Amino acid sequence: MTYYDVSMAIKPDIQVYKNKPEKRPVFIEAATHDVAGVYETLIHLNLHTGTHMDFSLHMKKDGKTSTNFDFTRLIRDVKVFDLTHVKDGITKDDLIDFDINPGDFVLLKTRNSYEDTFNFEFIFLAESGSTFLKDKKVVGVGIDALGVERNQKGYPTHNTLFDHDIIIIEGLRLKDVKEGNYHMIALPIKIEAVEALPLRVVLYDVRKNPISNNQ
Amino acid sequence: MTYYDVSMAIKPDIQVYKNKPEKRPVFIEAATHDVAGVYETLIHLNLHTGTHMDFSLHMKKDGKTSTNFDFTRLIRDVKVFDLTHVKDGITKDDLIDFDINPGDFVLLKTRNSYEDTFNFEFIFLAESGSTFLKDKKVVGVGIDALGVERNQKGYPTHNTLFDHDIIIIEGLRLKDVKEGNYHMIALPIKIEAVEALPLRVVLYDVRKNPISNNQ
Repeated sequence: MTYYDVSMAIKPDIQVYKNKPEKRPVFIEAATHDVAGVYETLIHLNLHTGTHMDFSLHMKKDGKTSTNFDFTRLIRDVKVFDLTHVKDGITKDDLIDFDINPGDFVLLKTRNSYEDTFNFEFIFLAESGSTFLKDKKVVGVGIDALGVERNQKGYPTHNTLFDHDIIIIEGLRLKDVKEGNYHMIALPIKIEAVEALPLRVVLYDVRKNPISNNQ
Repeated sequence: MTYYDVSMAIKPDIQVYKNKPEKRPVFIEAATHDVAGVYETLIHLNLHTGTHMDFSLHMKKDGKTSTNFDFTRLIRDVKVFDLTHVKDGITKDDLIDFDINPGDFVLLKTRNSYEDTFNFEFIFLAESGSTFLKDKKVVGVGIDALGVERNQKGYPTHNTLFDHDIIIIEGLRLKDVKEGNYHMIALPIKIEAVEALPLRVVLYDVRKNPISNNQ
């Protein structure tokens, strides 16, 4: 197998932020074979469910929405960093030894990837880590938590990343992926004018090109 | 520009099948800056909204769902056929002159791509067209209608395609794409055990490889 689906499966019992019941997806039979001749599902979906990306409207009243987002920014090479030893927030010190260059898109693998239920003490990107990544001029950050930060007053991690137009992906599942370089293909569904978008994220072995290898 | 986003934008006034109000997406403010300090949207979304793929549970009680769908089947080369002259159902005769080989994934461009409101007389794939494509051993069919067929008793087009494990994508927007060969990258969001999945579909010029060209 040369690819990794690093997306969370959306289902009725998917983990949701702080286990809040109103954040749980609801599946409704909108049409059934017996009555309508076809089967259709209606889903009630908070846009921050499972693997998703945030836009700055999530935190800022005058923030950006999904409209006109350039999806080609999500089809590119990425670096996965193993931070499974980190016990709380990921700080500058945790990141300083990695090879990070301007233009990099980094995915942070933590022990969160091994947990299928919501952990109120989930690992997150601490403010110092976000400032360090911003100073390194990364263009995107992905993490395997439903939030890129927790319990930081004023949301400095989100805001540092948003203020520098750094893409934020949350809710990755990186258990099966080793530290290293990969091709990423990620595509959000196309919903206009919202503060977050569910997306599918897959990684390919960097030695294989998914386009040139499957024909 | 070397890529084409051929997905429909989901928004409150998106066209929906037969203009049925219950099929319209509903956007709800689940959290607001003033009250919660963050902004979050909850969406009520019929899974057949906009660009989506069908699984056979849509038509068959014992049909397949989205669970375990191999998304790599959607990252591949495709052929776009210009059928904008067709006035009703696309028949075998409309398709017979195209170069179609076993393993092809074909996208049918019709006048639907030029219409932003639902047309009750939308162009569709007629039963004879679906049988012809099945006999040609295509592996996927995409169309720019919200349904791959209409007004065919027993849904023979859906069922012919489902019975031969041919992928069905509906709701494409192909106005900006000329007939020809493209790379397709399409990824559905990862929802388990449902009969349809919204997905994002993008096409790249076949002479350019999105993975090798953006680094």
